[in-house]
Amino acid sequence: MQVMGVPVVGVVGGGQLARMMVPPAIALGIEIRVLAEKPDASARLAASAVGDYRDLETVRTFAKDVDVITFDHEHVPQDVLRALVTDGVAVHPGPDALQFAQDKLEMRRRLAEVGVPMPDWAGVRNAEELQAFIDEHGGAAIVKTPRGGYDGHGVRKVTAGTEVADWFADFDELLVEELVDFRRELAQLVARRPSGQMAAWPVVETVQVDGVCKEVMAPAPHATPRIHQVAHEIAESIASGLDVTGVLAVELFETTDDRILVNELAMRPHNSGHWTIDGSRTSQFEQHLRAVLDLPLGDPAPREAATVMINILGGPQGEAITDRFATAMAQFPEAKLHTYGKDARPGRKVGHVNVAGSELEQVAFVARAAAAVFDD
Amino acid sequence: MQVMGVPVVGVVGGGQLARMMVPPAIALGIEIRVLAEKPDASARLAASAVGDYRDLETVRTFAKDVDVITFDHEHVPQDVLRALVTDGVAVHPGPDALQFAQDKLEMRRRLAEVGVPMPDWAGVRNAEELQAFIDEHGGAAIVKTPRGGYDGHGVRKVTAGTEVADWFADFDELLVEELVDFRRELAQLVARRPSGQMAAWPVVETVQVDGVCKEVMAPAPHATPRIHQVAHEIAESIASGLDVTGVLAVELFETTDDRILVNELAMRPHNSGHWTIDGSRTSQFEQHLRAVLDLPLGDPAPREAATVMINILGGPQGEAITDRFATAMAQFPEAKLHTYGKDARPGRKVGHVNVAGSELEQVAFVARAAAAVFDD
Repeated sequence: MQVMGVPVVGVVGGGQLARMMVPPAIALGIEIRVLAEKPDASARLAASAVGDYRDLETVRTFAKDVDVITFDHEHVPQDVLRALVTDGVAVHPGPDALQFAQDKLEMRRRLAEVGVPMPDWAGVRNAEELQAFIDEHGGAAIVKTPRGGYDGHGVRKVTAGTEVADWFADFDELLVEELVDFRRELAQLVARRPSGQMAAWPVVETVQVDGVCKEVMAPAPHATPRIHQVAHEIAESIASGLDVTGVLAVELFETTDDRILVNELAMRPHNSGHWTIDGSRTSQFEQHLRAVLDLPLGDPAPREAATVMINILGGPQGEAITDRFATAMAQFPEAKLHTYGKDARPGRKVGHVNVAGSELEQVAFVARAAAAVFDD
Repeated sequence: MQVMGVPVVGVVGGGQLARMMVPPAIALGIEIRVLAEKPDASARLAASAVGDYRDLETVRTFAKDVDVITFDHEHVPQDVLRALVTDGVAVHPGPDALQFAQDKLEMRRRLAEVGVPMPDWAGVRNAEELQAFIDEHGGAAIVKTPRGGYDGHGVRKVTAGTEVADWFADFDELLVEELVDFRRELAQLVARRPSGQMAAWPVVETVQVDGVCKEVMAPAPHATPRIHQVAHEIAESIASGLDVTGVLAVELFETTDDRILVNELAMRPHNSGHWTIDGSRTSQFEQHLRAVLDLPLGDPAPREAATVMINILGGPQGEAITDRFATAMAQFPEAKLHTYGKDARPGRKVGHVNVAGSELEQVAFVARAAAAVFDD
């Protein structure tokens, strides 16, 4: 059922990022269709198809009659992406950009060409090369698999070249990076249209626990104008240099000697941008839709002085997350509760809480307390 | 596909009010199902059934396995509503409350018992009785059909008792009201849970053109604390007195002699509350879902000093509304555009624009200009 002329966005992947694109699509009045992995995917309400995103014919059928294809994740194989482009489908971000999100070695090589500040890094092919890097960098380093990592998986701190023999069995080459002495982690999100317009949200501080994002403070507390400027310039250089379309998230280290270094990239809406749903004039999900449709970008300014996002990780085991709503809502009427329609499971991202207001400390207190209602 | 324990809200009617309940349902992680009138209804994305809301078996089937039934409109017949209640279905607002939204004479009689200030009114059964009321009230009056009116339909200004002979043919009794000398129109929205908790948004000013809402300014400019207090007390008296559950909208006159009089009621989210989507910490659509599920209510405080809502009436004829997005978005990046997935048609409510900020004049200018992009 399609009203005259309404743009249609097809999202490959039915996770919570696809789910959170649905409200702004409804608000704007554009049509959104999701290719979900399974019938009970988080974004099931908008699922027009269920199937395997690695299968070209499945994706090709899904992509018929949409104005643009975009993504809930970066795992669609290059041959599928390139076949769509050959078919004449608009794909944003495109395969040339996505290859740098799919392979961390390719990413580091390309970012070196773009010229953004990074930790020391190298591609290593065996234990000896890795040991040499470790020896040159104070006796420890971070090794990453080039592909397949997420939320702390595929990342290992090592002090000897022999500690990743299992990964060398699977990969010809691994990425090794210096152990950065950082004060905190930041994230800079920017949206970019195919025609080039960009819009950057304020840089935020992220807090990881066991490699998983737990908290985001927006804007990053005590961030100087220089930090905002450097972070914006880095993200915009990457977005332009890698021809990223849609939302780009750049995870950054703020080092103890005041440098800003690029840690990771994501070419999609990102957990560090969930605060924008309630804290920015234009959420990352609305902005992503505008960007991939090559529509003019919305105002990324924060609505209030401080917004804090706390992830609900795991949730109450054996109990519906929504069973805790009455408690959380009664205690914290100002908290914005977001849950993803997923069953609770240890460590799983099942929702988040946003609180916005004028005082960071008060906002953070309420957000943490409201999210804690959902702890097991 | 239902995740463990998730509450399910069933909405009868597939118009834009049902459509706008879908984003907060997705955000909270509750399930929403819509009984739509037609497959291409505004709320089609969440339609789990298409059928006639006047048919008991259709509604009964739809109401199976939902936690609560609520409404996009007030037109579901009393016998259908009462049969659901007899079946044990939670219905909010319930039939006892809805009868007062369905019949304006019943509404006036009940409000007189509750004791809220109203224009002079009477039930009239013929031209003579109407003429007597006109003669007692300065030679003119407003006549309304008790049922079936909306957006200026079913309302007529008369100066002679003979001018509504057509309506006397259809109705035993008509409502006649004095012509109120008002300075402006206001609206007060309040949400109420079955267990009694209420939350009121600030009173707003509404501007009608040809009987249709065109603009809303929130909060109402220059509203004194007394006006806010009186409006809140009126709305809360009505919500309690009529046992309204969910969102109640009370349209008010502010008279030239500083009285606040009740004009109309709506027992559902209301056009005068669309500003809350982008202007309040809790939108009327989220609050309605919380209220009908008897969950604690959210904070109704405004996010910013001023929010202005402008309706898009009609839209560009023979053209997709979304075709104007590029123009509106490029000029007004701070404007929040909402369209309802309906084809443009003269006078039809097809969308609205919200703008929030610190200065009412600036906000109103941008909202009006952005909405004007969609004029035919």
